[in-house]
Amino acid sequence: MEKLKSHKTFNGKTEFWSHDSHVTKTKMKFSTFIPEGEIQGAIIWLSGLTCTDENFITKAGAQRVLSKNKLMVICPDTSPRGLDLPDEHTSYDFGSGAGFYLNATTDGYKDHYKMYDYINDELYKIIQNEFKVQNIAISGHSMGGHGALVIGLKNPTKYKSISAFSPITHPTTIPWGEKAFKGYLGEDKSTWIAWDSCELLKAGKTHAAEILVHQGLSDEFLENQLKPRDLENTAKEVGQKLKLNLVEGFDHSYYFIQSFIEEHIDHHSKYLKG
Amino acid sequence: MEKLKSHKTFNGKTEFWSHDSHVTKTKMKFSTFIPEGEIQGAIIWLSGLTCTDENFITKAGAQRVLSKNKLMVICPDTSPRGLDLPDEHTSYDFGSGAGFYLNATTDGYKDHYKMYDYINDELYKIIQNEFKVQNIAISGHSMGGHGALVIGLKNPTKYKSISAFSPITHPTTIPWGEKAFKGYLGEDKSTWIAWDSCELLKAGKTHAAEILVHQGLSDEFLENQLKPRDLENTAKEVGQKLKLNLVEGFDHSYYFIQSFIEEHIDHHSKYLKG
Repeated sequence: MEKLKSHKTFNGKTEFWSHDSHVTKTKMKFSTFIPEGEIQGAIIWLSGLTCTDENFITKAGAQRVLSKNKLMVICPDTSPRGLDLPDEHTSYDFGSGAGFYLNATTDGYKDHYKMYDYINDELYKIIQNEFKVQNIAISGHSMGGHGALVIGLKNPTKYKSISAFSPITHPTTIPWGEKAFKGYLGEDKSTWIAWDSCELLKAGKTHAAEILVHQGLSDEFLENQLKPRDLENTAKEVGQKLKLNLVEGFDHSYYFIQSFIEEHIDHHSKYLKG
Repeated sequence: MEKLKSHKTFNGKTEFWSHDSHVTKTKMKFSTFIPEGEIQGAIIWLSGLTCTDENFITKAGAQRVLSKNKLMVICPDTSPRGLDLPDEHTSYDFGSGAGFYLNATTDGYKDHYKMYDYINDELYKIIQNEFKVQNIAISGHSMGGHGALVIGLKNPTKYKSISAFSPITHPTTIPWGEKAFKGYLGEDKSTWIAWDSCELLKAGKTHAAEILVHQGLSDEFLENQLKPRDLENTAKEVGQKLKLNLVEGFDHSYYFIQSFIEEHIDHHSKYLKG
């Protein structure tokens, strides 16, 4: 692991890292905020389409609240980089910047686009072994909200709590998901449901902690791509505790995230320390 | 004035604007955060070299604290744009992105680079007439900290309070200032002192309110460009109240600014409401 940059922030440090991933077989970057003193837990933050390891740590205003709660955050990049796979760089919603937090099975992609294993195995172990933090929660935005829900529901004991901002809740039924899953998983839709939080809930994958979700009602992707009501209805059907906050006037941007990040970090803090 | 973008943020709105400036004779951009309800005052934020109207509003985490204090902020761009003057785009510390908040007198620049008049007359009137806010304070970072000190000291009754992060305090004596002042004002150094906060203080220009300054001690520009001790010594000589916080470990970045922005906004709030 190589530390690229370090900036004192509140009572801790915002840092940028690079390492050789044995999962993606590429260099991978991530950012962290580490508060001073004993760390009570870690939140993995998964970003959305087109983002990198920089968006959250720069724009979310999280460091103040992480400081207060003695929590660290770790923000991985949204895909492998430095490759040149077929169609990898031709659109914003597939390939680079759009890894969708799954394990690809299609030719070319299956060798590198294993963002699920990267987060759930490699990054998880980095938190435990390099940063010496054992209690871990997961959160994210949009495509990263999908990632947080899917990874958290598939591994309910590894993650103390799950939250999401404007998550893609039902990717097998919306344009972003259909395009990505076809490209990463192929035409057989029976393989897609393992990466869809609504389908995972229906298959009995639940989490003991209440899942916290915020969704802006002025989000341009609300009905077409995100479908918070699908998550709400499915959670109700299967008895998954969910607090879905549909908030008037807010859009899909980091201005929305900074407005509610304190609620999310406080939510995770309760489970990470409890 | 044209509103380019609007994002609900906390209990207010982060917005981006464009207008035709009669001072710079170019289009100018600025960003604002406007809280809901009655507004108690406005802070003009002046950014540093290479910045635009976007840096502060995206990275400083100010909206939460502005919301709390019922204050607006307005963040102008750092220079005119869309021109092609001699040497305007050849370096990061002169010309575009580097207006230095003065009125240029050199050929070419004197027709457009009047950032002092732009801030102190045109933007000031926009706050009063368009946003209907009468109580105004001024703050900024680096080159913008210089701007806040100079504009505030030259107009002590127009600005209720002044603060700065890592300001260039004594520009006539440091490389950034010498280069910029030569380019904007010419070789006659007697004309430079009107744009130097230490020299203004020596000439009897003081402000009734305590000036608040934060300066990171791991700032790479500390000794060579910023010289906080020059400001401290001059303020002491002339009886200007100054609270200079030299803070261990912090650098020149927005991670530093977000760590102390609450203190600055609370400081201005006291004077804007008082």
